[in-house]
Amino acid sequence: MKPQLNETHDASLRSWVASANTGNTDFPLQNLPYGVFRRAGSDEQFRLGVAIGDQILDLAAARVAGIFSALENKEFDKAILGDKLNSLMSLAPAVWSQLRLALSRALRLGASAQAALQSCLLAQSEAEYALPAQIGDYTDFYTSIHHATAIGKLLRPDNPLLPNYKWVPIGYHGRSSSIAVSGQEFRRPLGQTMPPGASAPVFGPAKRMDYEMEIGIFIGNGNALGDAIPMQEAEQHVFGLCLLNDWSARDMQGWEYQPLGPFLAKNFASTISPWVVTIEALAPYRSAWSRDAADPQPLPYLESSDLRDSGAFDIALEVLLQTAAMRSSGTPPQRLSLSNFRHSYWTVSQLLTHHTVNGCNLRAGDLLGSGTQSGPQPEEAGSLMELTQGGKKTITLANGEQRLYLEDGDSIVMRGWASKDGAARIGFGEVLGTLLPARSE
Amino acid sequence: MKPQLNETHDASLRSWVASANTGNTDFPLQNLPYGVFRRAGSDEQFRLGVAIGDQILDLAAARVAGIFSALENKEFDKAILGDKLNSLMSLAPAVWSQLRLALSRALRLGASAQAALQSCLLAQSEAEYALPAQIGDYTDFYTSIHHATAIGKLLRPDNPLLPNYKWVPIGYHGRSSSIAVSGQEFRRPLGQTMPPGASAPVFGPAKRMDYEMEIGIFIGNGNALGDAIPMQEAEQHVFGLCLLNDWSARDMQGWEYQPLGPFLAKNFASTISPWVVTIEALAPYRSAWSRDAADPQPLPYLESSDLRDSGAFDIALEVLLQTAAMRSSGTPPQRLSLSNFRHSYWTVSQLLTHHTVNGCNLRAGDLLGSGTQSGPQPEEAGSLMELTQGGKKTITLANGEQRLYLEDGDSIVMRGWASKDGAARIGFGEVLGTLLPARSE
Repeated sequence: MKPQLNETHDASLRSWVASANTGNTDFPLQNLPYGVFRRAGSDEQFRLGVAIGDQILDLAAARVAGIFSALENKEFDKAILGDKLNSLMSLAPAVWSQLRLALSRALRLGASAQAALQSCLLAQSEAEYALPAQIGDYTDFYTSIHHATAIGKLLRPDNPLLPNYKWVPIGYHGRSSSIAVSGQEFRRPLGQTMPPGASAPVFGPAKRMDYEMEIGIFIGNGNALGDAIPMQEAEQHVFGLCLLNDWSARDMQGWEYQPLGPFLAKNFASTISPWVVTIEALAPYRSAWSRDAADPQPLPYLESSDLRDSGAFDIALEVLLQTAAMRSSGTPPQRLSLSNFRHSYWTVSQLLTHHTVNGCNLRAGDLLGSGTQSGPQPEEAGSLMELTQGGKKTITLANGEQRLYLEDGDSIVMRGWASKDGAARIGFGEVLGTLLPARSE
Repeated sequence: MKPQLNETHDASLRSWVASANTGNTDFPLQNLPYGVFRRAGSDEQFRLGVAIGDQILDLAAARVAGIFSALENKEFDKAILGDKLNSLMSLAPAVWSQLRLALSRALRLGASAQAALQSCLLAQSEAEYALPAQIGDYTDFYTSIHHATAIGKLLRPDNPLLPNYKWVPIGYHGRSSSIAVSGQEFRRPLGQTMPPGASAPVFGPAKRMDYEMEIGIFIGNGNALGDAIPMQEAEQHVFGLCLLNDWSARDMQGWEYQPLGPFLAKNFASTISPWVVTIEALAPYRSAWSRDAADPQPLPYLESSDLRDSGAFDIALEVLLQTAAMRSSGTPPQRLSLSNFRHSYWTVSQLLTHHTVNGCNLRAGDLLGSGTQSGPQPEEAGSLMELTQGGKKTITLANGEQRLYLEDGDSIVMRGWASKDGAARIGFGEVLGTLLPARSE
């Protein structure tokens, strides 16, 4: 049961918010992603909003304007009036769909609600954002076989792709406390590393700072402890997707990760985009599941009738770097790579189903990371470790600067979008994060 | 700066709650652990309580009785009137200490508050408990070198203790959503395992169900993202300790855990004791840090002046099994092992300091697990995998039943206590959990 195409996806729809109709905005009327925002610099409570063109529609204000009257009840009102998306996420998918339809109709060119809603808009340029949800648990997967193989070659040259990879959607638990919304600035972490050939580890700032380009998956209504979510129901439990930068300290990771997995190499910061694009908005951009014919068939619990045709999502994923020198000279960020979520070896449904097959409970607002989304070509790699072949192949930027790993003051911007003939182009906005110098020891 | 011995630790103190003075209760006047409780079977809001003998003192009611008048302010009142310990945990250690002193004085034999407090008690036999705190993030460490070596021998016979073990307090993130309070019943998890010699994994109920005897460490006031907690301040950020059973499915763990660590093998259930014993209550039971002379000195950030003398805690840890047959015949649980937290290779302070050295932020109510606390002797092992040498050596129980791993209907009880000449014996109560049959596939 996946969201179906309906009138909200009609590519010909135009909004009375003119900036939504430019063709190159991330937020046309067909998108309608959710976030939480307030006027920048204010101490107002954060409020729920929907991005439309270069504006944000304030949902609490829109409720007063009466556009959700058919939906209003105690639970819905609580969801709309909160300062996080969790309550909205925990409502039934049918309610999400009705809300989307109401928003689509109210924001259309010629809508009678225009007069009442005009005052419910805030320009995105005047807004600041918070984490869209209180994230209870954060799980990070490892769904790009191209990334897993490339990283595996660097960490275990004799054994790059482990025997479980093609059977198990490999994942591990991450840290929720250090996840922040786009704009996060964080210090280069200090920690232990083991220099090549040394007999004892050293302590100091990480030297091999990296980003990871991922899709974040926000859980909607969850499951009770002990229950599982089968494949055919999995997407009913997904509220939407965002962009996720899972910052990594590769030198710390290499020393600490055995046998229990990455820990301090990852948990100092993770950054997500402010807007959550709903699964329903992504319905036009389904894609075939990416598998080689020689790959094993998944075990039955990871199978579904529509897996091969439309299990994946076609979402372009771009990584850009802006160094401190570029920022001060007004040079825009430069692209480092372009990949696509459709290359993922495991689908969103498979991640939810696998995560819960043992009875583990997911809760509204929990975040799953897709793992770094590297494509099959080397230039589609979603991390510097891959692009520089483990810090061996220098990247020379247009302004002459060079990089193997991130340097202090570097900002990474990630963008994502979906487009297709006959459908609107919709985007995820961006996620921006900046590496600051290490704390003095 | 560790809590010092003071009048609340005086072994000669007696309470007007007679059951606190028996000498074998877990909860004499010198303990005063915190939890959240309500009348069993009621739908009352959970309230904060302190265990005293076989009773619980209701803190909100005790506040009305006036025993905290010197402490009352907006933050303190919020903490006392909540339904979780998080707000209390986030107060300053000096406030925790003042609260303990006020409770100690009010509950002493001859206290003028006795008349007013008498009606603020509920018998523990009439109470039910909830998780003491909202646990934001759960981190599990691996601090027993005896456990790490024994498990390592089974998983990697040629390489049991990895090179990082004696340098890095190895830890990983666990799942907070599936942590429940003592009494948890959970289904045997379903999942993938790879049978020996097979060419493809199979799906079904886990066959090698195990427990792990751990200490849980509740974070008090946390640290801001980017800041670190140095060794000498670490215990000021610890609210207290509890018992933790980190249930494990060994056959699933063996197949899934590389390269990112345990995931579904652990996240289906974890159970903690309802009572949190404060760090101050544990002051009399400090112990020397357990290291071999040949072991490397820790890196400077993991050093402190009192590490070797009193870095550890002397806490006895007991695991008992009650099978379904034992339960129906009224046979009490049978001891499987007895170990001690003093054998831990890394101290509580080292865990906090290591966790935050990279700037990772801890929050009030976060839980750290110590990892399985196995002692140096085989019979001190904190898991069945160790006791049965990987499922090869059968355990025969007193009633003739045999075990390699847990069977459906088995209950595991864990207990912990500290005692010392010249100090009272204080205990942690118990943590009980029961394995139910797997969900039908």
